[in-house]
Amino acid sequence: MRVTRVDHVSIAVPDIEQALGFFRDVLGLAVTTTDVEQKQGVVVAFLDVGGAEIELIEPVDADSGVARFLRKRGPGMHHICLEVDDLDAAMDRMRSAGVRLIDEQPYEGTGGRRIAFVHPKSAHGVLVELYETLPGDRAGRRLEDLTDLRRRVLQHGHVAVAGTRGFLIGLRRGRGKHDVAARGPEAAPGPE
Amino acid sequence: MRVTRVDHVSIAVPDIEQALGFFRDVLGLAVTTTDVEQKQGVVVAFLDVGGAEIELIEPVDADSGVARFLRKRGPGMHHICLEVDDLDAAMDRMRSAGVRLIDEQPYEGTGGRRIAFVHPKSAHGVLVELYETLPGDRAGRRLEDLTDLRRRVLQHGHVAVAGTRGFLIGLRRGRGKHDVAARGPEAAPGPE
Repeated sequence: MRVTRVDHVSIAVPDIEQALGFFRDVLGLAVTTTDVEQKQGVVVAFLDVGGAEIELIEPVDADSGVARFLRKRGPGMHHICLEVDDLDAAMDRMRSAGVRLIDEQPYEGTGGRRIAFVHPKSAHGVLVELYETLPGDRAGRRLEDLTDLRRRVLQHGHVAVAGTRGFLIGLRRGRGKHDVAARGPEAAPGPE
Repeated sequence: MRVTRVDHVSIAVPDIEQALGFFRDVLGLAVTTTDVEQKQGVVVAFLDVGGAEIELIEPVDADSGVARFLRKRGPGMHHICLEVDDLDAAMDRMRSAGVRLIDEQPYEGTGGRRIAFVHPKSAHGVLVELYETLPGDRAGRRLEDLTDLRRRVLQHGHVAVAGTRGFLIGLRRGRGKHDVAARGPEAAPGPE
């Protein structure tokens, strides 16, 4: 197996729209995709950086790992995603090297991609996502309204809606540094 | 100004040789460069990942920001470096957007590159390095023995050698999870 590229660097934030005030509006990066990661209880926005991407992730589920990360560490880099040419071979190699995997089997991430996570205990404190490109990958990626996506996570998740929602709104408000008007990524410029 | 690509993702570790046990030996990434960053009081090793790089940074100076980061958070992702087409224009844009810069003026980093850091307070918890490609950039990058490089930091730095050295060796030993034999990156496979 071979690691072929850095696919994305993921940044946990309490409020994606607010974070776009820096990553989109100051750095000038284009938002290419928004989506939900139901398993992680998060909504996500991808910004293109010359072929690689920055992924902003915001927890909708207060019990999610990302919500716990934010409570413990505050916003910041959460994981790195490396593309591999053969995910099964990569996972076999990790296992035979005694590397601890979070996922024993690959599962489906954003856009139908097959992914699996390596435990940070085995990767010097870095949460490493491994990802295999599949035919048709990145097809059908689109910009949806973040508010709609948050609702989708809440409707399909195992989340106790009222309490969680209040908690997360508090978390998002409390973290605010910039007074960036909330707006959906549909207002973002398209890919260049 | 435009952000053109992710140049590298930097990972702070107490012991580069040990971290190579995962990033080089398990992931199969090739070490392309080792160097010192005198201003940061660190030695560094770069591993190629399809054109972008993973940078491992190890503090030699116990008073350095990276040593403090390790004491506070343990090993993990430390910063992301984005390539820009015009660093001066990028810094002007940051200033006019009210973004806090760590460096008011660009300075020289590894391989003669011009760099400047954005404060994580203005970038949602992410320490962002901005970097401008210069003619001849990456020329003259080489693999030097890490022990020699550590000595170079200590000789030229403002470091109280004996105490610091003992402290850092303790830090490196204490963090150890894998029993990877110490060896210089000169033993690493060359770039593919």
